[in-house]
Amino acid sequence: MTPTLTVDLNCDMGESFGAWTLGNDAALMPFITSANIACGFHAGDPAVMKQTVRAALRHGVALGAHPGLPDLVGFGRRNLDISAEEAFDMTVYQLGALAAVARAEGGQLHHLKPHGALYNMAATNAALAQAIAEAVYKVQPELVLYGLAGSELTKAGEKLGLKTAHEVFADRTYQAGGTLTPRRQSDALITSADAALAQVLRMVQEGQVRTQQGQDVAIRADTVCLHGDGAHALEFAQRLNQELRAAGVQLKAATPATAK
Amino acid sequence: MTPTLTVDLNCDMGESFGAWTLGNDAALMPFITSANIACGFHAGDPAVMKQTVRAALRHGVALGAHPGLPDLVGFGRRNLDISAEEAFDMTVYQLGALAAVARAEGGQLHHLKPHGALYNMAATNAALAQAIAEAVYKVQPELVLYGLAGSELTKAGEKLGLKTAHEVFADRTYQAGGTLTPRRQSDALITSADAALAQVLRMVQEGQVRTQQGQDVAIRADTVCLHGDGAHALEFAQRLNQELRAAGVQLKAATPATAK
Amino acid sequence: MTPTLTVDLNCDMGESFGAWTLGNDAALMPFITSANIACGFHAGDPAVMKQTVRAALRHGVALGAHPGLPDLVGFGRRNLDISAEEAFDMTVYQLGALAAVARAEGGQLHHLKPHGALYNMAATNAALAQAIAEAVYKVQPELVLYGLAGSELTKAGEKLGLKTAHEVFADRTYQAGGTLTPRRQSDALITSADAALAQVLRMVQEGQVRTQQGQDVAIRADTVCLHGDGAHALEFAQRLNQELRAAGVQLKAATPATAK
Amino acid sequence: MTPTLTVDLNCDMGESFGAWTLGNDAALMPFITSANIACGFHAGDPAVMKQTVRAALRHGVALGAHPGLPDLVGFGRRNLDISAEEAFDMTVYQLGALAAVARAEGGQLHHLKPHGALYNMAATNAALAQAIAEAVYKVQPELVLYGLAGSELTKAGEKLGLKTAHEVFADRTYQAGGTLTPRRQSDALITSADAALAQVLRMVQEGQVRTQQGQDVAIRADTVCLHGDGAHALEFAQRLNQELRAAGVQLKAATPATAK
Repeated sequence: MTPTLTVDLNCDMGESFGAWTLGNDAALMPFITSANIACGFHAGDPAVMKQTVRAALRHGVALGAHPGLPDLVGFGRRNLDISAEEAFDMTVYQLGALAAVARAEGGQLHHLKPHGALYNMAATNAALAQAIAEAVYKVQPELVLYGLAGSELTKAGEKLGLKTAHEVFADRTYQAGGTLTPRRQSDALITSADAALAQVLRMVQEGQVRTQQGQDVAIRADTVCLHGDGAHALEFAQRLNQELRAAGVQLKAATPATAK
Repeated sequence: MTPTLTVDLNCDMGESFGAWTLGNDAALMPFITSANIACGFHAGDPAVMKQTVRAALRHGVALGAHPGLPDLVGFGRRNLDISAEEAFDMTVYQLGALAAVARAEGGQLHHLKPHGALYNMAATNAALAQAIAEAVYKVQPELVLYGLAGSELTKAGEKLGLKTAHEVFADRTYQAGGTLTPRRQSDALITSADAALAQVLRMVQEGQVRTQQGQDVAIRADTVCLHGDGAHALEFAQRLNQELRAAGVQLKAATPATAK
Repeated sequence: MTPTLTVDLNCDMGESFGAWTLGNDAALMPFITSANIACGFHAGDPAVMKQTVRAALRHGVALGAHPGLPDLVGFGRRNLDISAEEAFDMTVYQLGALAAVARAEGGQLHHLKPHGALYNMAATNAALAQAIAEAVYKVQPELVLYGLAGSELTKAGEKLGLKTAHEVFADRTYQAGGTLTPRRQSDALITSADAALAQVLRMVQEGQVRTQQGQDVAIRADTVCLHGDGAHALEFAQRLNQELRAAGVQLKAATPATAK
Repeated sequence: MTPTLTVDLNCDMGESFGAWTLGNDAALMPFITSANIACGFHAGDPAVMKQTVRAALRHGVALGAHPGLPDLVGFGRRNLDISAEEAFDMTVYQLGALAAVARAEGGQLHHLKPHGALYNMAATNAALAQAIAEAVYKVQPELVLYGLAGSELTKAGEKLGLKTAHEVFADRTYQAGGTLTPRRQSDALITSADAALAQVLRMVQEGQVRTQQGQDVAIRADTVCLHGDGAHALEFAQRLNQELRAAGVQLKAATPATAK
């Protein structure tokens, strides 16, 4: 008997701050299975975090900490030359803050996914990756660590025995080694919704992605990153949700690697 | 048989930030029984929090969250007109952040004491007091809530069934109602170390304090606030520690009201 | 010969921050004569300030510094118990920052109007009002100081010999003393655009406003505050602009009191 | 007739923040000729800036803006991947803020020197260097731009026609190309005060520095950077001041390159 294929649809959430609203959380919530909730460093504030946790709990969406660099004006998107110890410390802090917000609302965290530049740096910098994985391990080892499929971050988590979720992108093209095409290249993005959908379905169903070099490489697709911004984000989320289910794929928050 | 008298000596700790050092934590740690650790809003940063937790654990000093107003440049000392909900949210956030730092170091929190203007506002503003108590209640109801003896904050905690520790001051004079003499009055401070010591001993041993009006009022002294700054802070802490023990008072982190 | 009546239409601008957009600056710019530009404490960042200065210069809109309290998450709307010296210091700092942005773009500042809670506190607190007026006086004494009509702030400016602009509100009701009806009262706001327009026209043309007590009081209306947010802000700005001009009122940035 | 040799002794100042004190400004002020004053992003706040400007004016020390990266917790020492435009914007903002503080105190700015990671990045990144130089040029073109001797920053300033001051270090060793030995190398620092003094005297008097490779290279020494921290900072500043004057070198704030 073939086991049911499952995949998680995650989205960054709770990126408003104070008087400023960002994203389209309420509309997207019905179509995702896990939310990466900003923790106050790159976005989010204690009130926004609470509202976002509430909304996710209402929709049965899994709660994830989404720690970022302490760069509010830069939205955590600019690389900052932090030490591994600083990465550890800021991950522990933000994880704890969101965990308390979740607990106060009767929920609990399910995963952690670093944000923006912290995510990107941790994908290739083994020391930062290990520091972030250790932060999770020392605070809530039961959490699932989300990271770029095949990255230093998922490796570091696996080495520590953490559950990990390998993340893939619907709208990014891939290179021979299974890495993302850098954004500065003109062919980095998939602009056709049909092509993006097809790429996701193939990654989930076959564990393969066609690279820009025209060959297939194996890729593990535990969770698909949905973007909350952009004109067609909502429409795409809705369509991806429907077509995956129509194809018999079960949508649920990423579960332990060992359980797959 | 007379039960042994006990009292807690608490001190604000971890109030450095980034490149800036404040306080005399290492030197004071041996003489106190509980540390109120800044949580990043008025002082403290993730690295300072970790170092402070480590130092407290080494000395067997109880760990307390010391949440403050989001006013770094004002050190959380300026009243800010926040709503009760904002007080709740910022308490949850900071409590959780420190709890995670403690957990990563193998420790756990023992109490929470608001800082500066948040402490003062919560002493008299019942709505803020209730919000802070509820934050503790919803996140870690086993914590002891520290507040000014007889204040709205301890009342709010007790109403929710929290353990509370009534805090007294060695170097502040008291008014008829058992309240502190406002700082703007010339007789607000006790400058003689002898007089301060005598006041503490009497509060702990007899549960009485002589007011500026010349009469005694009952006061509950579960914990004594020590100041970390000032030329003689260390000397006074050392002396208070010794004389209390010499008087047969056991020094230990504040325990549940119900256990006294 | 009757002199031409003039009035200024001012609006808070540049209140975006980093990745967050707020307000409708581009759409409103054509209908106003002076812009109060956030300076980085309650909103705005160096990039937003530059973009806002550029947009204002393109539209011939006068540039004003809009300093606020250092309370980004609260958008500068919560009272903070600052000293007069702190008010002075933060006004100097923010004024200078925007002045440099303006200079780099080939423009120069025309006025200063405090934001939010700083504006409100300076309306009634003479010490804060004087500190803000002195900051303007010591840095750029040629600027026009905008304040609530008849407030401590305009008084403080006038005492120092600054040009002042008395500000009135289209959508707020007034009390017997010429003060605004507090927002907590149910009759604080004028929700009918027609009534708001009529109130402005009368204040500008007759220097009178009908109070909630049913009597007229004299009011000096140098500048009308337009709100940038709300569903009908743009529509109302456009209509007010048109009807004032149709009534023969010249729209221009507030000029010295002595010139009226 | 041999013209009198002159050199400037500069030091970072005003790096306290809120309740936190850093550095030894009052003690060092008598021995320096120009102060680089933090502008609120990496250190400093409006009150500290004012106190520092006052102290410098009292001692006849030239006022310089010392803009840094928006990284308070990292003290502006961590590289942040900013764009050239962001470098321009943050320089304009901070320069203007300090200029206003200076004006309010009856002074005016003399120079600008970027801080920490911004200084280091601008030494080698031509685009950032140009952006910073343009910020000075567009806001106060009369200012002297301080940068590492022979760096991209001084080059960018000179290309725009700005006065520049080439900065040398007493306690850092130099490499063949006239660049500083990277700090990660064990021989980066000169720990002997005598050797540091000798290096400065030779750079000022002969325009030469002996590299770690054992050969001399030409170096332009308009200004010497003194460190405000460290156990012997004050003693060294005092000694350097005395020995330079004893050697007939005139100490004065860096003057235009064209005037040398």
